[in-house]
Amino acid sequence: MNVLITGGAGFLGQRLARELLTRGTLKDADGVAQPVTELVLLDVVRAADFGDSRVRTQVGDIAEANVLANAIDGDTAAIFHLAAIVSGQAEADFDLGMRINLDASRLLLDTCRQRGHRPRVVFTSSVAVYGGDLPDVVQNDTALNPQSSYGAQKAIAELLLNDYSRRGFIDGRVLRLPTISVRPGKPNAAASSFASGIIREPLNGEPAVCPVAGSTRLWLLSPRKAIESLIAGFELDAAVLGNQRVLNLPGISVSVDEMVAALREVAGDDVAKRIVWQPDVRVEKIVGSWPGQWDTTRAERLGLSGDRTFADVIRGYIDDERIEVR
Amino acid sequence: MNVLITGGAGFLGQRLARELLTRGTLKDADGVAQPVTELVLLDVVRAADFGDSRVRTQVGDIAEANVLANAIDGDTAAIFHLAAIVSGQAEADFDLGMRINLDASRLLLDTCRQRGHRPRVVFTSSVAVYGGDLPDVVQNDTALNPQSSYGAQKAIAELLLNDYSRRGFIDGRVLRLPTISVRPGKPNAAASSFASGIIREPLNGEPAVCPVAGSTRLWLLSPRKAIESLIAGFELDAAVLGNQRVLNLPGISVSVDEMVAALREVAGDDVAKRIVWQPDVRVEKIVGSWPGQWDTTRAERLGLSGDRTFADVIRGYIDDERIEVR
Repeated sequence: MNVLITGGAGFLGQRLARELLTRGTLKDADGVAQPVTELVLLDVVRAADFGDSRVRTQVGDIAEANVLANAIDGDTAAIFHLAAIVSGQAEADFDLGMRINLDASRLLLDTCRQRGHRPRVVFTSSVAVYGGDLPDVVQNDTALNPQSSYGAQKAIAELLLNDYSRRGFIDGRVLRLPTISVRPGKPNAAASSFASGIIREPLNGEPAVCPVAGSTRLWLLSPRKAIESLIAGFELDAAVLGNQRVLNLPGISVSVDEMVAALREVAGDDVAKRIVWQPDVRVEKIVGSWPGQWDTTRAERLGLSGDRTFADVIRGYIDDERIEVR
Repeated sequence: MNVLITGGAGFLGQRLARELLTRGTLKDADGVAQPVTELVLLDVVRAADFGDSRVRTQVGDIAEANVLANAIDGDTAAIFHLAAIVSGQAEADFDLGMRINLDASRLLLDTCRQRGHRPRVVFTSSVAVYGGDLPDVVQNDTALNPQSSYGAQKAIAELLLNDYSRRGFIDGRVLRLPTISVRPGKPNAAASSFASGIIREPLNGEPAVCPVAGSTRLWLLSPRKAIESLIAGFELDAAVLGNQRVLNLPGISVSVDEMVAALREVAGDDVAKRIVWQPDVRVEKIVGSWPGQWDTTRAERLGLSGDRTFADVIRGYIDDERIEVR
């Protein structure tokens, strides 16, 4: 099976690539495990190829038709469309957000449609599609009301994916991801960047700014579970999805105070004290509009699961990144 | 106040134009009635100008940037964006639906954004944004789940209008219209065309095909009330709308059997007998996915109202079109 990952040089793209290469197979539409024969990693920067002969790295702007035409052919049976402009950047640069989060997503769908081979497409959406007056636990039939351009663009792409699937142009599935924490590496322009930073930086012996109140409730998913969910979501039988291709992935609902308490539990008080509380209205407004929890019944019935506790998530991060807590 | 109506040659566009010319004023953002100084009617065919010097008719394809650039300048304070490809046609011609219902709507919003004068924009959406498993009465916070490309395109344009409003590029308001009945004229490619046809044709002494079961529940609005709602929606104070620019307009919930009973009540049994029952799966699938009723509390609190009974709607149609019932 030939696989394409857009955003293949990104953190999730690289983790997913590594996992697919290790597993070596993906189930096809008939539920039969097929060997991963080619893995195209497309991004604006050159992705790592892990020295694996199955990997082909491609550098290009996915908002350009010829780039997608080169990346997708009639043998591309699996597409993980992860490329995106993150929330804070899409708010700061409206045109760039529209170009990548909306136009490129549509171009990808249209490229598939023109090829006519109906590939399976996994698209990652976000808590940011919700907003406004929300119930304590968002339901599957709760209306979307994004309060950021990023959220609006993701919601639009969801609608496109549903309609292209309904019409038989693709076999799409949208996975609405909780906020991913703990991400390794550096802070990014996502409004939720702090949700990883306040754990990652203190564990690395550095201070971290928390721009929201401790009572702010977040809906989180670990990178490990995110990758597991992307693959499980890909392998779901189309019949069980029907005409509702969007799945709210299981997460855990924790307040920022509870996150800090978990950090203290795992790494000690000296580490937790490295968090500096410095409210930022811009971040609070965006993050505060997101749901702190959503109903996960449908995803769980389909066999998808989230993390157990946030302390476990931190331990998983320490383990994955081989961090020596000091 | 300079006003633009896209779809200005269409049935609603023409009725709205006539009403605006008769009233002569529209309230501005401060609630002050301003004279309608220019009324641009833009459409792919030449609109009637009513011999009124305030009217300027413009022929053009609204998916082309220069057409919108010619129609919208810094003095265009009011835009009623009614141009659309109807449901049946958008399902039959996917590219055309995307081009007019999505691309042209976005181009219109971007033209406004480039002008930078933040005009008030009224956009008409539809029952077709809903679908799937719906409650008996759709609520304001019920998720959209369109089961037609038309519905998906309208839902996407709603999201754009909300985000462009939130960012201050326009002052937008989306009015979700019930199915309009009774429309004068000829049948069109809308899946809901029969909702007017089964009243209009029998009143004109002609047979009409009803493609859905008599138990099918429709959510209807008369042309009179639709025009009244478009103007009232335009004149709403932006502050009361906040960041939720979408309003579900009041309608009346009637079954097709009840529509026929109302026709019998108003025009007699001989007229009602001109309806021929001939199920069409394609139409039943689309129309059956639409809500038969939605909650109207918010719109009513804002002073908008629907029709009283469907018999009244038929009488209004007979009156408006000067029909002699025989």
